[in-house]
Amino acid sequence: MKLWDKGLPTDQKIDRFTVGNDRQLDLVIATYDVKATLAHAKMLHKIDLLSDKDISEIERELNKLQIEIEKGTFIIEDQFEDVHSKIEFELTQRIGDAGKRIHTARSRNDQVLVAMHLYLKDELLQIKSLVKELSQDLLVAAKKYKEVLLPGYTHLQIAMPSSFGLWFSGYAESFVDDLYLVNAALKVVDQNPLGSAAGYGSSFPIDREFTTKELGFETLKYNVVAAQMSRGKSEKTAAFALSSIAGTLSKLAMDVCLYMSQNFDFMSIPSEFTTGSSIMPHKKNPDVFELIRGKCNKVQAVPYELTVLTNNLPSGYHREFQLLKEGIVPAIQDLKASLEMAMYALKNIKVNKSILEDTKYDYLFSVDTLNALVMNGMSFRDAYVKIGKDIESDMYKPEKNTKHTHIGSINNLCLKNIEEKLKQV
Amino acid sequence: MKLWDKGLPTDQKIDRFTVGNDRQLDLVIATYDVKATLAHAKMLHKIDLLSDKDISEIERELNKLQIEIEKGTFIIEDQFEDVHSKIEFELTQRIGDAGKRIHTARSRNDQVLVAMHLYLKDELLQIKSLVKELSQDLLVAAKKYKEVLLPGYTHLQIAMPSSFGLWFSGYAESFVDDLYLVNAALKVVDQNPLGSAAGYGSSFPIDREFTTKELGFETLKYNVVAAQMSRGKSEKTAAFALSSIAGTLSKLAMDVCLYMSQNFDFMSIPSEFTTGSSIMPHKKNPDVFELIRGKCNKVQAVPYELTVLTNNLPSGYHREFQLLKEGIVPAIQDLKASLEMAMYALKNIKVNKSILEDTKYDYLFSVDTLNALVMNGMSFRDAYVKIGKDIESDMYKPEKNTKHTHIGSINNLCLKNIEEKLKQV
Amino acid sequence: MKLWDKGLPTDQKIDRFTVGNDRQLDLVIATYDVKATLAHAKMLHKIDLLSDKDISEIERELNKLQIEIEKGTFIIEDQFEDVHSKIEFELTQRIGDAGKRIHTARSRNDQVLVAMHLYLKDELLQIKSLVKELSQDLLVAAKKYKEVLLPGYTHLQIAMPSSFGLWFSGYAESFVDDLYLVNAALKVVDQNPLGSAAGYGSSFPIDREFTTKELGFETLKYNVVAAQMSRGKSEKTAAFALSSIAGTLSKLAMDVCLYMSQNFDFMSIPSEFTTGSSIMPHKKNPDVFELIRGKCNKVQAVPYELTVLTNNLPSGYHREFQLLKEGIVPAIQDLKASLEMAMYALKNIKVNKSILEDTKYDYLFSVDTLNALVMNGMSFRDAYVKIGKDIESDMYKPEKNTKHTHIGSINNLCLKNIEEKLKQV
Amino acid sequence: MKLWDKGLPTDQKIDRFTVGNDRQLDLVIATYDVKATLAHAKMLHKIDLLSDKDISEIERELNKLQIEIEKGTFIIEDQFEDVHSKIEFELTQRIGDAGKRIHTARSRNDQVLVAMHLYLKDELLQIKSLVKELSQDLLVAAKKYKEVLLPGYTHLQIAMPSSFGLWFSGYAESFVDDLYLVNAALKVVDQNPLGSAAGYGSSFPIDREFTTKELGFETLKYNVVAAQMSRGKSEKTAAFALSSIAGTLSKLAMDVCLYMSQNFDFMSIPSEFTTGSSIMPHKKNPDVFELIRGKCNKVQAVPYELTVLTNNLPSGYHREFQLLKEGIVPAIQDLKASLEMAMYALKNIKVNKSILEDTKYDYLFSVDTLNALVMNGMSFRDAYVKIGKDIESDMYKPEKNTKHTHIGSINNLCLKNIEEKLKQV
Repeated sequence: MKLWDKGLPTDQKIDRFTVGNDRQLDLVIATYDVKATLAHAKMLHKIDLLSDKDISEIERELNKLQIEIEKGTFIIEDQFEDVHSKIEFELTQRIGDAGKRIHTARSRNDQVLVAMHLYLKDELLQIKSLVKELSQDLLVAAKKYKEVLLPGYTHLQIAMPSSFGLWFSGYAESFVDDLYLVNAALKVVDQNPLGSAAGYGSSFPIDREFTTKELGFETLKYNVVAAQMSRGKSEKTAAFALSSIAGTLSKLAMDVCLYMSQNFDFMSIPSEFTTGSSIMPHKKNPDVFELIRGKCNKVQAVPYELTVLTNNLPSGYHREFQLLKEGIVPAIQDLKASLEMAMYALKNIKVNKSILEDTKYDYLFSVDTLNALVMNGMSFRDAYVKIGKDIESDMYKPEKNTKHTHIGSINNLCLKNIEEKLKQV
Repeated sequence: MKLWDKGLPTDQKIDRFTVGNDRQLDLVIATYDVKATLAHAKMLHKIDLLSDKDISEIERELNKLQIEIEKGTFIIEDQFEDVHSKIEFELTQRIGDAGKRIHTARSRNDQVLVAMHLYLKDELLQIKSLVKELSQDLLVAAKKYKEVLLPGYTHLQIAMPSSFGLWFSGYAESFVDDLYLVNAALKVVDQNPLGSAAGYGSSFPIDREFTTKELGFETLKYNVVAAQMSRGKSEKTAAFALSSIAGTLSKLAMDVCLYMSQNFDFMSIPSEFTTGSSIMPHKKNPDVFELIRGKCNKVQAVPYELTVLTNNLPSGYHREFQLLKEGIVPAIQDLKASLEMAMYALKNIKVNKSILEDTKYDYLFSVDTLNALVMNGMSFRDAYVKIGKDIESDMYKPEKNTKHTHIGSINNLCLKNIEEKLKQV
Repeated sequence: MKLWDKGLPTDQKIDRFTVGNDRQLDLVIATYDVKATLAHAKMLHKIDLLSDKDISEIERELNKLQIEIEKGTFIIEDQFEDVHSKIEFELTQRIGDAGKRIHTARSRNDQVLVAMHLYLKDELLQIKSLVKELSQDLLVAAKKYKEVLLPGYTHLQIAMPSSFGLWFSGYAESFVDDLYLVNAALKVVDQNPLGSAAGYGSSFPIDREFTTKELGFETLKYNVVAAQMSRGKSEKTAAFALSSIAGTLSKLAMDVCLYMSQNFDFMSIPSEFTTGSSIMPHKKNPDVFELIRGKCNKVQAVPYELTVLTNNLPSGYHREFQLLKEGIVPAIQDLKASLEMAMYALKNIKVNKSILEDTKYDYLFSVDTLNALVMNGMSFRDAYVKIGKDIESDMYKPEKNTKHTHIGSINNLCLKNIEEKLKQV
Repeated sequence: MKLWDKGLPTDQKIDRFTVGNDRQLDLVIATYDVKATLAHAKMLHKIDLLSDKDISEIERELNKLQIEIEKGTFIIEDQFEDVHSKIEFELTQRIGDAGKRIHTARSRNDQVLVAMHLYLKDELLQIKSLVKELSQDLLVAAKKYKEVLLPGYTHLQIAMPSSFGLWFSGYAESFVDDLYLVNAALKVVDQNPLGSAAGYGSSFPIDREFTTKELGFETLKYNVVAAQMSRGKSEKTAAFALSSIAGTLSKLAMDVCLYMSQNFDFMSIPSEFTTGSSIMPHKKNPDVFELIRGKCNKVQAVPYELTVLTNNLPSGYHREFQLLKEGIVPAIQDLKASLEMAMYALKNIKVNKSILEDTKYDYLFSVDTLNALVMNGMSFRDAYVKIGKDIESDMYKPEKNTKHTHIGSINNLCLKNIEEKLKQV
């Protein structure tokens, strides 16, 4: 983000206005632009639009740039409006006109499209792997605490017995659903858009199958208009997937914040994840989980930002597509950080093993008692009356050994099945 | 939607407030509730909680109700708060206490969950099929008009030659991406949630694999907490998929509205899809496409509505989940209607075959001319200078026979490949 | 909402698609259309475009229609696409051609614009009055319970002493802020748009100041293009105001739901606002407040829906503006119902007067104790160390008589000042 | 935005996660924090909690810091988590313990609240003034080009005569409506929240009226719970106002982009606001207006981001409120930049004065012709038939001298009245 200075001359203001945050945001796609540029150059060489000398020089210098990027020494100075101009400049400085020739049969739009596809593919794979890792941890915790009971709430009212086994593994299975959306987003971005030029193809006999293979795309976006339309659409699809994960993680964080309140006191997390005060020793502010919740909620607003940005625009390139990065890049970073933080904290979570000793939770078991009477042959109506009376006359004694045996219930968590789902997705 | 009367007594106001639009909305899930109720009853019979007589009476009467629903004679009167109470009432009227016994080991939340999963699965399959049909039509139109050129725009400025072949099939290929999200949503809803009861399972030895098979679900949502969390989440995932389709269709509609303006005059649609005026004979208002655009835009707001409704609520059932239907049901209906309308109208679309005869489009071909010089050995720099001069001195003559031969370009549309993608998805 | 039948012929489908829900929604603006039509007719008579006979017949019949609307006997049959056609039909049936002549110098767009302005103005005034009434009730409750202490939370952790006096009147003062937005929305809709015709004015010498006075508008939207642009914009501005109120009310509802949980047990509401179960006697599900929260959250999504619907459309009328009503009308009804429900329930709320007797809340007072030492001259550092030690060695004794005397604190609620703000807004 | 490094140790990751972008964002509120800190210190001195020496040292050093901030030499180094810690550190470095004593009766939450209120007030005033300036420019352009006719569109179809006078001044009057929302937001933020401490007040006898006057607030937020609730709510209210302006400006930008297309060719802007190509000399890409549209559309998503972030959180402080700045600060900067850019560009806009010479616009006048016949006594029906026939037989001759004389129409723009509205708001 750039502050808006009063004193600048008009042309510099225009420059600042049009460049925006691109220099900073483009650092994350530099590596993909170099890869795609190399693939494009090799293709031009294959169809005889670049000489042997050209391609060997280009390859050499692009590889050098790639190393600078990996090392973190690559920077985009203020005289360049984006990463693409910077890389073009570097090449031309180093190898002369050949550096310009790589732009044959390619447009800026083309470059951004393919770099963003590669970037999104890479990030979605990383996020998928983080979600799987977190879910595995949740399954481990579910197994570890499967005996520890917890009140189950409906309407935020104490309702039925639940357990940490159910709670932890419930989130694990819920994340599987989010990964279906990640897979869908991966299908969308794993299609080579390179070669669409300004969005309508070109009269050069480019070999798009070659670049598709070279860049490791599963298939290509055949139609060049469709390729152009994937600008904004691929970001939005990725944002749907991020948003779905963020929704699940935000809910988990909400639960943790609630359960850490003294009014629940169900769990605690290591002190480095909290803030407190020595004169208020009871206070363990769950800052990390509040920020996970907050960042995940912000991520959930991103699809709407991308929608308002692109909606009702006719087909074809529009300059504001440049602003798509401002929405999706921080969302990816925030979500990855939140997943990693959740993992750290959950690994060291401590659960309260004696929650249900508090008598206010006794009525949790009244439905189980009723069911037992019914299973033993009493009519539902009679059983219902009997328990109502017992409770009213304070004679009700809860039987706290839950006998929930069906698939997915307290004493039958099916962790293997959930693990299998996680593997399959 | 209900108007809010001043004169009502408090309890009736509360009733109206809490029931909301449920009676009307529930008509769309009645058939699924009957199916799920029958599957649940059969399972109860299997585990000996319903007698042979009970199950045969229940099955008989549920089948009768199913027929009434199909015929459209089934209604939910004002004394029932929703479809589930109505069906329970009907059964109890007809077969006595057995009608109540089917609620053993089941809660209202359970019922809504499974009915919504079945409903969403059914609708997503229908929508998928409508999108495929529309995309096929677009491919047919692309083939039919593949020779007709069109200006391609960037920044809404005339830029490069395009064609109706590219335009029609570009949307077809773009819809394929939306279907990946539909597939993801199908994976999410194709998991049996039945048996989660109030969200924490029960102490009855229910057989959830039996109901899974009976209802044709691909798998089950094992964990009951995860099953409960799918309330809201499955609607949201479906809404992401609808929203994605809606985004593509809205853009297509925007193009049509623009292209039908006299300032473009690229195409026309049958008069029954337009409104006009005899004293303004040039006016063909594309009402149907404006409403497709509008309805699709509304659909794109639905994921946000569902997010604000459910976000930051801790896990467990909350009463406002009832309001989820108000968002997703009309969105499904609007999207289906929009897809169907688009199909009707596009089948009868007429394209203007002489667009490029207008000289204002001549410069479209300047890049092709330049590329031809480059391909013939002139350096890019010299070619660029030559064309610049030709244009300046008004000597530039466009060569309108495009020679775009690469994959996905004007003269190589790859319609078969796109069709193949459509089949695969 | 209309179901989408497979079997209909195309023209009927188109009709259904384009008419949408208008017949149902238009009932709420019928009365405003009649008023505006009468004002327009009187103006036409004034500029000699309607005869004395015409105007007296028109006035007589419009007054009759107005009575039918008030009685609830006015209906819009299926042969009419909206309320405007219905009223035109009725007039023409009753008084012949004069019924058509009232359309001189007016367009459908014009009619909808002015009717929506009148409708929104009326509803915003009603909503403003409901919010004021609810806020007054909150101030009454604040006064009544000003002595009852409550734990104040930060990070959902027990932090500092608060009180029901603070809590109730805090929401009252917070609603004042929402009313500033309501006032802004009122300014926006209280400008006569009538006379803009299709959005560009007309060649008839209409007297727009006359209709402005006749309809009681504060001023007029002079420029006809601006008047046309207020379509969508006035709905969106109203939606911002509704959304703001809804945000405050939703938070209040969230607090109530939390405070009614057995883990807090701070308050209870009359049983007709809750649901429960005789075998779970502790359960008082706060359904009404959950639905208030849910409906208010849905209302908060409406500005977004209106934005996606209208955004990026160039100036001038577009047919989908018809869909604006589908967003704003139910939002108004839901918000009014929620405000009224909140008022009923809060009037009968019971607060727990002995919350702070639970020792888990003792540390609430540690900061007050520290401040007292500091006020008595001990350095902050020493006081801090002393209290830390007292707490550690279990010697800490809370002094529960709060001495918070500054403006707006527990013992100095400034209810009069808040009441004054409420009156001023 | 911060990249997320793999290699960091956990505690540094937590630090980075919790600090986020605060250092960068806080630079914009530094000046307000210094002001509020000084006011608070003076108040503490007044109530004898700071000595004469303390207050004179504090004042001296805060004034020095203020100068550094104005000069741009003030920076927040990595060891500080935000601007507040940095300022505290500086004070303590320079004047010892007195630097710490200013925190008596104040919390971090308090500090952020009051600084954000001052910041928002300042920025809203600046934005209001920019909008007024832009609107004045639009009125000047309206006057300058009031004779130049333009086609008016409905459904994007050529409909009725309009003019640049109408178009320019229509936007000016439309911006007035946005300013009502800005005024509402100003009312909301112009209330002193200082003194709410952690959200529940304190036991110190602070003088909140003193700080209210000292800081120039119109009034104070009396209730401390209401003051705390204004966190998030004041940002959201400001965002509604920004969003409203952004919606108007985005539509203006959309019109400009469309009107600059060769298919319209209604206007042109100076070349420094466009990009082009010498071999496509017709191409004037309106980059600046596309980016204005895009940035304004992003701004319109901000209220939703703030809503998802704060919605459904119970009352009281939550850590993620820190993230509110990430939404509102860039939105303010983007909107100001967009307003300024629009002003530059519109000042130098050139309109095409001969648009209506193109015969495709002839039918624009058919309604005027019909109205003239009606005004001359012909019945509407006969006039309608005559014009229909004339058009059909190609005999229709448009009379291009519009005689639109009513208030707000082509020949009666009422620019003075609009200017008066602008002044009043």
